[in-house]
Amino acid sequence: MAPTSLIVRFQQSVSPDALRSYLAEFISTFFYVFAVVGSSMAARKLMPAADPSSLIIVATANSFALSSAIYIAANISGGHVNPAVTFSMAVGGHISVPTALFYWISQMLASVMACVFLKVAIVGQNLPTYTIAEEMTGFGASILEGVLTFGLVYTIYAAGDPRRSLPGAIGPLAIGLVAGANVLAAGPFSGGSMNPASAFGSAVVAGRFKNQAVYWVGPLIGATVAGLLYDNVVFPNQVPDSIRGISDGVRV
Amino acid sequence: MAPTSLIVRFQQSVSPDALRSYLAEFISTFFYVFAVVGSSMAARKLMPAADPSSLIIVATANSFALSSAIYIAANISGGHVNPAVTFSMAVGGHISVPTALFYWISQMLASVMACVFLKVAIVGQNLPTYTIAEEMTGFGASILEGVLTFGLVYTIYAAGDPRRSLPGAIGPLAIGLVAGANVLAAGPFSGGSMNPASAFGSAVVAGRFKNQAVYWVGPLIGATVAGLLYDNVVFPNQVPDSIRGISDGVRV
Amino acid sequence: MAPTSLIVRFQQSVSPDALRSYLAEFISTFFYVFAVVGSSMAARKLMPAADPSSLIIVATANSFALSSAIYIAANISGGHVNPAVTFSMAVGGHISVPTALFYWISQMLASVMACVFLKVAIVGQNLPTYTIAEEMTGFGASILEGVLTFGLVYTIYAAGDPRRSLPGAIGPLAIGLVAGANVLAAGPFSGGSMNPASAFGSAVVAGRFKNQAVYWVGPLIGATVAGLLYDNVVFPNQVPDSIRGISDGVRV
Amino acid sequence: MAPTSLIVRFQQSVSPDALRSYLAEFISTFFYVFAVVGSSMAARKLMPAADPSSLIIVATANSFALSSAIYIAANISGGHVNPAVTFSMAVGGHISVPTALFYWISQMLASVMACVFLKVAIVGQNLPTYTIAEEMTGFGASILEGVLTFGLVYTIYAAGDPRRSLPGAIGPLAIGLVAGANVLAAGPFSGGSMNPASAFGSAVVAGRFKNQAVYWVGPLIGATVAGLLYDNVVFPNQVPDSIRGISDGVRV
Repeated sequence: MAPTSLIVRFQQSVSPDALRSYLAEFISTFFYVFAVVGSSMAARKLMPAADPSSLIIVATANSFALSSAIYIAANISGGHVNPAVTFSMAVGGHISVPTALFYWISQMLASVMACVFLKVAIVGQNLPTYTIAEEMTGFGASILEGVLTFGLVYTIYAAGDPRRSLPGAIGPLAIGLVAGANVLAAGPFSGGSMNPASAFGSAVVAGRFKNQAVYWVGPLIGATVAGLLYDNVVFPNQVPDSIRGISDGVRV
Repeated sequence: MAPTSLIVRFQQSVSPDALRSYLAEFISTFFYVFAVVGSSMAARKLMPAADPSSLIIVATANSFALSSAIYIAANISGGHVNPAVTFSMAVGGHISVPTALFYWISQMLASVMACVFLKVAIVGQNLPTYTIAEEMTGFGASILEGVLTFGLVYTIYAAGDPRRSLPGAIGPLAIGLVAGANVLAAGPFSGGSMNPASAFGSAVVAGRFKNQAVYWVGPLIGATVAGLLYDNVVFPNQVPDSIRGISDGVRV
Repeated sequence: MAPTSLIVRFQQSVSPDALRSYLAEFISTFFYVFAVVGSSMAARKLMPAADPSSLIIVATANSFALSSAIYIAANISGGHVNPAVTFSMAVGGHISVPTALFYWISQMLASVMACVFLKVAIVGQNLPTYTIAEEMTGFGASILEGVLTFGLVYTIYAAGDPRRSLPGAIGPLAIGLVAGANVLAAGPFSGGSMNPASAFGSAVVAGRFKNQAVYWVGPLIGATVAGLLYDNVVFPNQVPDSIRGISDGVRV
Repeated sequence: MAPTSLIVRFQQSVSPDALRSYLAEFISTFFYVFAVVGSSMAARKLMPAADPSSLIIVATANSFALSSAIYIAANISGGHVNPAVTFSMAVGGHISVPTALFYWISQMLASVMACVFLKVAIVGQNLPTYTIAEEMTGFGASILEGVLTFGLVYTIYAAGDPRRSLPGAIGPLAIGLVAGANVLAAGPFSGGSMNPASAFGSAVVAGRFKNQAVYWVGPLIGATVAGLLYDNVVFPNQVPDSIRGISDGVRV
């Protein structure tokens, strides 16, 4: 990205293309959070106590919803659908800081609205929030969420790498698969959020912020390390940025 | 689409290619409804009361069947498999009104026939119909179904966008994934129909039309809003229509 | 296929390429039947009475195994993995009768060997065979299996159609998805075999041939009708055959 | 690969590209083993006794994690993620012996570290190890694991075959599907490891090496036979090696 003054960068952040990106992030994050939180409510309605089937429901919903959410936004906003991904892209210089801020706002707003909608539509249930298992510490859970997010974001970088030829086609699927696998492994321990937006939205609407830091510190660090590692060590010499519109992300 | 008189449009609606489209819609909708309603009967046979495993069965069947139903019809009829999609495509000008009417007839007929077949083949079970949870109002369920259908149809528009290059290949999969995620989130609340045909067919054959409006009003509005938003706001300047035969839809 | 005498056709049926096709069909059918019958035994070991989770296990195994079995054989033998598919391809003239006979022998042998292997490896369990629900007649089950197989084979024809461009890539996945959806819908009623080989192999090794005809009559008729309908009505004017080696089937 | 002296081969094994390959194998194997072993712990936390839902959790996690692990490493290291695959590739001449040794070290180290991480993060649970069903002998389990691994590795060879055109795109998915199907069939009997690294890592960290040989002998033999069969019988005349960088494997 050519060196540009802050004002030019800000102006790029409110161009029609940029506004469309924010809308795309909003729509994708809304449906992702809707599926993740809604499936948890659906499982609880059918079986009050968590059981293995409930974990399958939540993990499958996460995997399916993330793949499709990234797919529909990929050629518009890059399909971040996750503030940790946006943060990592900003640290790596794939997206300007003002644009990243608007991405965050869109994602947070979408998550809160999805949770408000679920709370209003499904009366008679408290909104579920991410919690950590009794035997875990907040520190341990942060590290677990950080490692999970590392795996997710590393896959997002690999899927968005324009040097991949044909299999670039299945990038959104590969991302959904790693998300589903991670939830299956970590669901009963830290929830497997890997996404500050979904944790934030459900906490705001439920009014419970216990252990909220777990779902920010770990994912932001994990995502950043994954991005830096992929760009600089595993697969350096990336094609120059700003080839694919407003921001990088999954190619579709 | 060039301006054509109503008569010409009607003639196009009964051309051999058009008739093949209706047959393709019939076959795809038949197998979609067969899987959705049949899986619900299969789950009920194995476990009379709904439990989380039953939700997984119904959501997976919906997801798998929709992906394959769209896949097989995509390069013939566009793979609507859903009156709400056809309605949205007609409002957006992607398909003529007479053709849309024949699509609706094919889809409705296919759904009724699939349910008749299930009722005859599987004796000793009443046909299940879509119902809403006790704690929900019909109005709330309509909105929920409308939002679900918005997500589904938005994905269908994104998947059918000819400006996508390689990942157009996985369009039918992305559509099935969002359908599955939506059912996992909304199944125990409104059923997660997102499709007036499946709700209509099972209601006709079971003879229970309670809350039938929920599965028409919400989906038709949600689908139309999704189509207009995608075409005009998120990703305007579409390639002119009528490039891909009888109607638009998922590219295959 | 140019008119050739029976002797030439037979000679083509024992060429090195043809022998490789039979080996590919053997390997694919072996692993497909291994997964289908083995997953049924695995579910029964964990939970003696069939429950919704068992249906998920069997349907998922069927779907996953069929996709991968077709994928690995597709560019060698066409990836039939099913005598009903081979029968339909022979009726439609996509494969010569002598070659079809060798395909059948390979598929039957593979299924029997997979079941023998399962019986020997997993001592202490009887081999499960396909059965129909008490409330169904053999005639009803035949029709049900026929309709299921129609849906499967129609998808196989659509996936193998060389006129599809990019999405031809996901053909094996679409076939696995329709198979999984069909098992989820029909599993507790007729078993959802859709494949005479898997029904035959388990019956031979278990020594129980009750209702065996159900799994032959329905699938062979359903597959043939699907092939003729696709070739002649839904999507006529196929590219001439024998473009892709020994036989038609899924393109990979 | 042109004949090169051992020293040259070793030098190639410590080139920057080779080191990146080892890192890629480490990351992919880490997340694969994390998902496989972690999902087993998650299922056990929700339901102490194994039930069908637990099998679905473990098989789905294995399938999803393997697909994405291979996807992210495919264009860097070939995406082996499994010492049996590396062994087979070395026997078949697709990768030099020194490089294969470094692959093994990366994979083993990653597996041990993933298990250490799980043990530390999830306090209060013993690490699960692969075990065989009471009614099975070690010899029978070795053969079962060998057959399972044959199916997996055969699919890996087919997916990595550069003569496949478009459907090469879904290679990593096909591999994950066969892995999932195999676990669904063999999970309650031998565990369905198909991977010496995951068996080794969990055994080291848990300190239980009972039946460890089962998870080495069977997979190494099964993988080697699969590779030799694919290269020499099913689909001979491979394109010369060393076209795709450091080693062969899945094309991405």
